Amino acid sequence: MYGMAELHLLSPRGFRAAGVYAGIKSKPPADVGLLVCQAPVPAAAAFTTNKVFAAPVEIGRRHIARGRLRGVVVNSGNANACTGERGRRDAIRMCQVAARVVGGEPGEYLPSSTGIIGHHLPMEKVQRGIIEAGKYLGDSCEHALLFGDAIMTTDTKRKSAAVKVRLGRSVATIAGVAKGAGMIGPRLGVAHATLLSYLTTDVQISPAVLRRLLADAAGESFNCVTIDDHTSTNDTVAIFASGAGDATVGAERERRAFAAALLEVCQALAQQVAADGEGASKLVTVRVRRAVSDAAARAMARAIADSPLVKCAMHGNDPNWGRIVSAAGMAGVPFDPQQAVLKLQGTAVFRRGAPVAFDAAKLSGALAAAEVSVDLDCAAGTGRAVFWTCDLSRDYVAINADYHT
Amino acid sequence: MYGMAELHLLSPRGFRAAGVYAGIKSKPPADVGLLVCQAPVPAAAAFTTNKVFAAPVEIGRRHIARGRLRGVVVNSGNANACTGERGRRDAIRMCQVAARVVGGEPGEYLPSSTGIIGHHLPMEKVQRGIIEAGKYLGDSCEHALLFGDAIMTTDTKRKSAAVKVRLGRSVATIAGVAKGAGMIGPRLGVAHATLLSYLTTDVQISPAVLRRLLADAAGESFNCVTIDDHTSTNDTVAIFASGAGDATVGAERERRAFAAALLEVCQALAQQVAADGEGASKLVTVRVRRAVSDAAARAMARAIADSPLVKCAMHGNDPNWGRIVSAAGMAGVPFDPQQAVLKLQGTAVFRRGAPVAFDAAKLSGALAAAEVSVDLDCAAGTGRAVFWTCDLSRDYVAINADYHT
Repeated sequence: MYGMAELHLLSPRGFRAAGVYAGIKSKPPADVGLLVCQAPVPAAAAFTTNKVFAAPVEIGRRHIARGRLRGVVVNSGNANACTGERGRRDAIRMCQVAARVVGGEPGEYLPSSTGIIGHHLPMEKVQRGIIEAGKYLGDSCEHALLFGDAIMTTDTKRKSAAVKVRLGRSVATIAGVAKGAGMIGPRLGVAHATLLSYLTTDVQISPAVLRRLLADAAGESFNCVTIDDHTSTNDTVAIFASGAGDATVGAERERRAFAAALLEVCQALAQQVAADGEGASKLVTVRVRRAVSDAAARAMARAIADSPLVKCAMHGNDPNWGRIVSAAGMAGVPFDPQQAVLKLQGTAVFRRGAPVAFDAAKLSGALAAAEVSVDLDCAAGTGRAVFWTCDLSRDYVAINADYHT
Repeated sequence: MYGMAELHLLSPRGFRAAGVYAGIKSKPPADVGLLVCQAPVPAAAAFTTNKVFAAPVEIGRRHIARGRLRGVVVNSGNANACTGERGRRDAIRMCQVAARVVGGEPGEYLPSSTGIIGHHLPMEKVQRGIIEAGKYLGDSCEHALLFGDAIMTTDTKRKSAAVKVRLGRSVATIAGVAKGAGMIGPRLGVAHATLLSYLTTDVQISPAVLRRLLADAAGESFNCVTIDDHTSTNDTVAIFASGAGDATVGAERERRAFAAALLEVCQALAQQVAADGEGASKLVTVRVRRAVSDAAARAMARAIADSPLVKCAMHGNDPNWGRIVSAAGMAGVPFDPQQAVLKLQGTAVFRRGAPVAFDAAKLSGALAAAEVSVDLDCAAGTGRAVFWTCDLSRDYVAINADYHT
């Protein structure tokens, strides 16, 4: 794989995008976006597993069913969730307007929305926004940035990642953008994020293979992020393969190379989402290894990453490791603290049931870094998992106590 | 049942208690307590189900095995958890000192500790405290208050409850105290709370019946409280039946009356724990009814009560109900929002998949109350559950970011 410098969402050939401000969010930058191909192309999507899913998720599931899409039409500032029949009509209307201004049929578009739940979309603004976006479609880095802006809500930073990967004699490009800062604890299947992420690639690939590879990558990336453990009504990850490049994903070897590259892009985006969690000052990476199974490791990693007590301690640069061991113990999976070793920023603090002496002031200083590691070795098997989260700050409370009123 | 006024932990006959300050906590009031009977009496206890359990829990499970105990020896300020072999020796030593100063065998005492995890007990202070407490045992209201103080950590208020209940021609008294403000999300079995709660009664009852009744009561009270969804290493609920009164729990009718009275005391304590959650400004009661099963109702109630997004909205008096419906949908149990009705403080905000118009300013005013109700009617079955939690405030972060360093 090559580096990510200079690459963006529209580096894979065959895509155009735009983002405009239509007045749905209280202030710019953009809140309506289009990401499109010239024709329907192999596509795959993973949606929320929440029993309460937004209208665009319902319509999007229907539109992705045939494995081909022409593009995405998206707005931020309003999730179009819990909005009943009118919400469904509005999601369909977004696709109709996109089809009119870009081409093709409404069923060839994936509608997406993110923002507050329980309010009807301001459809005049949304429609004007889509028509406006249609006028400004292009494939420059600037276009990629504007589309990325159009999906942001409480995000403080844009999230993007891209790689080039050699497949046989050809080179394919994979790129993606994501948004998400709150209501992040996705459980995606390709059947599951208000994580939103859109991925582009110019590889030639079948819809079925693309679908399976997206599911695998999401399982080891987006589904391993938690900010507040809340699976959103709108979580959506979608990938589009324009086929505009020479590279083909066919043989097992190419598939593996493509899968690895896709995972790299998805993990880079997942880490950026965690690092930009609402009110976050640092990225916390929780690694659990030698658990009895991968599932057990995952349950422990999630329990640690979800614990408000652990997250507050991380905010305070506090090596209060008892909360971490205790969180692992409450995950409901086999765990024997008598065998375990816990390290914070590489420093052992707990080993085989008892505390290890450490320099608290020094470790607290190390925990003040922008990236913090929590490593739990269970010495019980071969299971492993990695989760990404952030600290819990007073700003998180401020953002979420005063979001709506 | 009679009212609770004037009753306290030592109102049931046959108990004495004391609480002293031994310098384990950074400041008074008391941090070492004794609650004892004259002889071993029927007793039952429920401990944490965390795989990581503290030394006093390990020793306590052993001592309660025969269903009879003489009392409790407890300290706050240090949880004696994750402290290895030395921790086990220290927990046993607490029982030995208690037996020496009060009477009986070490195995007749339940040791309990609460406070920071991963530090060895300062045994000189602990032993001096137990000896001191032994000198001041008594059965007055003042003694009950001092014992209650001895178990507090970040609690801002004492938690106590008591009732009198008629059983046949006699009257029994049931009383209890509890502590808990953080690391609260107990899953107790009688086999499960740093929730600590100690209950006294003067009824005559067999250990086996007492055990079953405690399990039932804990399931509908302590196990329905969540502050941070963290099952502690030290959670312990214990009940002692002195038999010093005339009332007997034998026939089914008496058992039901006693069970109802015990549940009333446990629920009163559970609500006090939730209301005094770290940084809390209000008690939030989440009721789910007409779910497909009690288990489903419970999963949804817990998901709502655990959601930091919901808890922050409650802190901001924000009727942002989408977060509540979304939390119910992510509980992993059957839930159809098209059938559901959600009420906040009695005001319908969501009905059958769509928003209900309401006066946001008025409802926000109603949410500023000290007690807030969230009622979700699933219209799908007969399952029901109640959970108690609190709001999530900046103070929660302050308390937990700066607890240790």
